[in-house]
Amino acid sequence: MSATKIGVLGGGQLGQMLGLAAIPLGIECVFYDPAPDAPARVAGRHISAAWSDREALAEFAASVERITFEFENVPAASLAFLAERKPVYPGVRSLELTSDRIREKEFLRSAGVPVQPFAAVTVRSELELALATVGTHGVLKTRTLGYDGKGQRVVHSADELARAWDSLDHAPCIYEAFVPFDREVSVVATRGADGEIAAYPVVENLHTQGILFRSIAPARVSDELARAAEGHARRVLEALGHVGTLALEMFVADGTLVANEVAPRVHNSGHWTIHGARTSQFENHMRAVAGLPLGDTGMAEFAAMVNLVGGLPAREEVLAIPGASLQLYGKSPRPGRKVAHIGVVAPTRAELDERLARVEGVARRVNRLSLHAEPARHA
Amino acid sequence: MSATKIGVLGGGQLGQMLGLAAIPLGIECVFYDPAPDAPARVAGRHISAAWSDREALAEFAASVERITFEFENVPAASLAFLAERKPVYPGVRSLELTSDRIREKEFLRSAGVPVQPFAAVTVRSELELALATVGTHGVLKTRTLGYDGKGQRVVHSADELARAWDSLDHAPCIYEAFVPFDREVSVVATRGADGEIAAYPVVENLHTQGILFRSIAPARVSDELARAAEGHARRVLEALGHVGTLALEMFVADGTLVANEVAPRVHNSGHWTIHGARTSQFENHMRAVAGLPLGDTGMAEFAAMVNLVGGLPAREEVLAIPGASLQLYGKSPRPGRKVAHIGVVAPTRAELDERLARVEGVARRVNRLSLHAEPARHA
Repeated sequence: MSATKIGVLGGGQLGQMLGLAAIPLGIECVFYDPAPDAPARVAGRHISAAWSDREALAEFAASVERITFEFENVPAASLAFLAERKPVYPGVRSLELTSDRIREKEFLRSAGVPVQPFAAVTVRSELELALATVGTHGVLKTRTLGYDGKGQRVVHSADELARAWDSLDHAPCIYEAFVPFDREVSVVATRGADGEIAAYPVVENLHTQGILFRSIAPARVSDELARAAEGHARRVLEALGHVGTLALEMFVADGTLVANEVAPRVHNSGHWTIHGARTSQFENHMRAVAGLPLGDTGMAEFAAMVNLVGGLPAREEVLAIPGASLQLYGKSPRPGRKVAHIGVVAPTRAELDERLARVEGVARRVNRLSLHAEPARHA
Repeated sequence: MSATKIGVLGGGQLGQMLGLAAIPLGIECVFYDPAPDAPARVAGRHISAAWSDREALAEFAASVERITFEFENVPAASLAFLAERKPVYPGVRSLELTSDRIREKEFLRSAGVPVQPFAAVTVRSELELALATVGTHGVLKTRTLGYDGKGQRVVHSADELARAWDSLDHAPCIYEAFVPFDREVSVVATRGADGEIAAYPVVENLHTQGILFRSIAPARVSDELARAAEGHARRVLEALGHVGTLALEMFVADGTLVANEVAPRVHNSGHWTIHGARTSQFENHMRAVAGLPLGDTGMAEFAAMVNLVGGLPAREEVLAIPGASLQLYGKSPRPGRKVAHIGVVAPTRAELDERLARVEGVARRVNRLSLHAEPARHA
């Protein structure tokens, strides 16, 4: 039997968009999020309680048939407590592997997805080995995702690597080779409980100060590369036994793909699907978790998405742009905080470029980015 | 300034779809509907109180900036009470004219929109004049819309007309010439506060037992006829000074258009726009009422909509049909009650026909129609 009551861990904008997609499918969402003003509260019941509140967690579990998340940094103990009570999708394996950058990279490699050279840095003596494996041009990142947005340093020399590790308080890290990429792309795809996979066209992404600025669908890459990218996403979904939507972010370097990271949930680079694809990534995630058949991931026109971060333009200005749609999350703007996105569609690539230029102009004017203000949770 | 808090009179499925379209635009809806389980309650605040409850009406008016409706049979006294407090869109003229079939037809004629011959029947002596004007093949309808779905009789002779009027308890009626139509079509269109008009492609409708069964967009009519139909809708919007979405239903008879009726609100024959048009009729209505620019009404593919009335299939069955989407209203099925609709899109007319045949098959199997069970409110 397919489910009609689904619990969602986290109540940010991803939860809000999941909830809005769920209602027409006859699915009631219950959101668990400590924040009393969690954006998702407009799209379902909201339980505002601490992650450690076992009574609230038990009530949450009792009120739903299945559990999913829009926020992967749920404390392990809370998740274990819930998993004893109700099935959690996409599954523990997806969460475990992507919560540790070393295990994630090892997993990707074992699944047949190309990754750049990398090495663990847990004790000082490993710095030398890491340099030998990776080289002097690399990126040092904390192994586990933090809530504070910090945790990444670009490195150009052995000295910089040592200083970078000092600045990260000697946290367990991964040191990855810097990839001199031409483009960043991602594939958002959904896997159903029966193993059916529905992949969206590969998307081209542009980040500014570490925050996604804009996505264009489909990406301007060869058919061959697009097929390869989709193949990698399928291998990841299958190897994880993932049920739901995920995103695989990749670099295109010298015409080949190198996987960067996996987000085991609906993803910012898939927001364009709300207006640009026949079924959104949010609807397909809810369909998968509920045990329903997946919807068509095709697109009839060209599409793009631009994030509004830390500031909002007048709605009139956005909505006057042909083909533009606005998705406000109901959050007060502050630097580095994603508060909305603009979708834009057009029948031709040239028209999309023209419209997108206007949309990007608006976003560049109002966006206030800040590396250290927004939690990494909605990367 | 554009509005962010909008009151909606009525909380049925039209309200629900308005509310779901409003959230991403940063608009909070407050729904006024006596029914405690009004479907729209999932998409905004819901005030459940009687239409005569002045305290509740005052609270409703105080909590919003503007008022609109999804249900046009709001008692006149309640509406007047609200209109003294906050602006009501689409406007009193739209409501007044369409609440009386005689005034509606006279208005259409004066706006330059062709209508069939008609006559008022208020006293018995008018029956003869009506027969002389209209002929013996006609339809007798009550002038004002009832809540009980009754109020229409097809007539083939003078005797039948007299008996029909008896059966309608001698209510004030309109007697209209029967139009031997080839097709029923409608144009859904939105007018902004600044006079901007955005019309959707003309739609072809099929009714079963007086309830809309299915709409196909665009209608299979000539470009010339489509342009004429859109022109009529524009004339109606302008003559009413309407702000918001409305639907003009027309017959195609012998290659020409004859207007049937106006619905001064979002309309069932526009539900396909949720999945089939670049901006839905619901979003454009909220944009118009809020004072925002209207969105693109174009479609990138062929689209159709089929109503589920009085029964529901398994969700799996619908969602497994390519290009199909499901919109459940959260209502318990009973005969004659609209409980959901299925949207379907396809890149070609032939594929649409094929998919639509499957969708119609599902609907025909589960639908339980009944002439007298469903209020006319969501016609």
